[in-house]
Amino acid sequence: MGDPAGIGPEIILKSIARLRPSAQRSFLVIGDRFVLSKAARDLRLKVAVNAVADSSALPVGRAGLNLLDLANVRSRGFSYGADDCRFGAAALEYIDRAIGLLMNGASGALVTAPVNKATIARAGADFIGHTEYLAGKAHVRKFAMMLIGGRMRVVLVTRHVALKEVPSRLTRESISDAIALTHRALREQFGIARPRIGVAGLNPHAGDAGTFGDEEEAVIRPAVERSSRSIAGITGPRPPDVIFHEAYRGKYDAVVAMYHDQGLIPLKMLYFEEGVNCTLGLPFIRTSPDHGTAFDIAGRGVANPRSMQEAMRIASELSSRP
Amino acid sequence: MGDPAGIGPEIILKSIARLRPSAQRSFLVIGDRFVLSKAARDLRLKVAVNAVADSSALPVGRAGLNLLDLANVRSRGFSYGADDCRFGAAALEYIDRAIGLLMNGASGALVTAPVNKATIARAGADFIGHTEYLAGKAHVRKFAMMLIGGRMRVVLVTRHVALKEVPSRLTRESISDAIALTHRALREQFGIARPRIGVAGLNPHAGDAGTFGDEEEAVIRPAVERSSRSIAGITGPRPPDVIFHEAYRGKYDAVVAMYHDQGLIPLKMLYFEEGVNCTLGLPFIRTSPDHGTAFDIAGRGVANPRSMQEAMRIASELSSRP
Repeated sequence: MGDPAGIGPEIILKSIARLRPSAQRSFLVIGDRFVLSKAARDLRLKVAVNAVADSSALPVGRAGLNLLDLANVRSRGFSYGADDCRFGAAALEYIDRAIGLLMNGASGALVTAPVNKATIARAGADFIGHTEYLAGKAHVRKFAMMLIGGRMRVVLVTRHVALKEVPSRLTRESISDAIALTHRALREQFGIARPRIGVAGLNPHAGDAGTFGDEEEAVIRPAVERSSRSIAGITGPRPPDVIFHEAYRGKYDAVVAMYHDQGLIPLKMLYFEEGVNCTLGLPFIRTSPDHGTAFDIAGRGVANPRSMQEAMRIASELSSRP
Repeated sequence: MGDPAGIGPEIILKSIARLRPSAQRSFLVIGDRFVLSKAARDLRLKVAVNAVADSSALPVGRAGLNLLDLANVRSRGFSYGADDCRFGAAALEYIDRAIGLLMNGASGALVTAPVNKATIARAGADFIGHTEYLAGKAHVRKFAMMLIGGRMRVVLVTRHVALKEVPSRLTRESISDAIALTHRALREQFGIARPRIGVAGLNPHAGDAGTFGDEEEAVIRPAVERSSRSIAGITGPRPPDVIFHEAYRGKYDAVVAMYHDQGLIPLKMLYFEEGVNCTLGLPFIRTSPDHGTAFDIAGRGVANPRSMQEAMRIASELSSRP
């Protein structure tokens, strides 16, 4: 359910309310009845909530919204947008319960709603983000972030680092790992038998044969060559201002980008509202909307649920694949 | 006319042949009759060529293609795609004559077709690119490259440098200069009375208040603040993965980008074939297609003229502004 005081409850309710009948599936929300009911009342959303008992097996209940109520949040002291470490602790418990269910062999997929890293940290947890936290709990050392928008999929080799640190963070291993994670996810989760993966260069014109930077020849090309020994269908390093056009035109099933903005600028230019984050390398499927708690608009009923809808749609699709 | 052995002659002929009657204007090609006639014959393009005498005043001749024949290129030894320093010397002479006409106070605009930097350099000239060469000849110290695609306009603070050198190349002065050049061009050349200019950050999330890199607070914001003392309508630094979406939605008349791919990736994703390069800061209007000589396909009739058509259209529009 994400942070109780953020827009998570609102976008969950809106997303389920807007599901087309053909997309009806069983959703289990791990959260708090008080918060969800209040949000439904405040926003005048009619969503039937089916309470389920503590559950160790998925799928549970019937189509629509099933709730596992952890009863962490009470009306006293609740207010939308509150930066409260009790809500951080609650949000963390939702995640931990979800991990427990999925690691116990339940089928299904995890969709995470936005949390506030600062309140979770104040609640005493070591939490720099969902992605890293989930990887740690699943004992996974190699993982990556894929962003999905429309038909574009982008996997990042480096994430939240200053631009000046990007070149030194790129290694043959980190690039090969990202390629391998992308290939495995496209095959196993997205059901693409022969994935076509494009790998971006780092410099303008992919270095123009070493004229502007040597990372393409020193790091990226060797990584592509190493990966190509075991994986077919890899192209690169391609000029960054060419590869995303190619991807947009359908040439690749995914692009491996060297840094955050290289991948996010083209994706968010067109798919700003419906971008979805998907973690690769976990033993279960995990998606999330590509935005934060938006405390400033929580409770006002104006939150846009499109990214959450897309996150739920993709999680449904991937988890129903045979 | 650009390099005689490249696709310049072909895309010029195709562009003029495809002009809608309402867009008919007087174009003066500075080049070689032999090459243009051969291209028209080889490609079966019917374009009437009106020879004009050495001219010191623009506009010249009638609507359509007027030719100032410098007669540098003869049939002996000509072949498409030839990497020949005589062609480099010819291409340079076309540019020099054009500059002469425009600097002598002729009205009009310059559209440059692609040249081969290496053959021009072998012909003995100090030439790293049209932009720098034109600025030098016009005795202009402050200039910038604007890329235009659809309704997006992007101005680059740094151009062809390795990504790892970008952070150290950014200065308050280079950013303020780019903003000032953008503002002046939007007002004086594009006829926008109150330009809205967006300035991109450098780091993911524009640094997230210093968490990933300090260039936003140390360099970009001070530059925006300094520029804002004399120029209204500047916004920034904005997160790079947000600003191009905003620009695409029409929020800015131009975006000032910190590095080549930051600006080129979003522009070329959607406007790959019709991107136009426009030099800011010159005493005359100059546009060019956003591609090279394409020696590998010269003479085969398959060159795509869209970028040249757009370069001619924009040059016409800007130069006919009162």
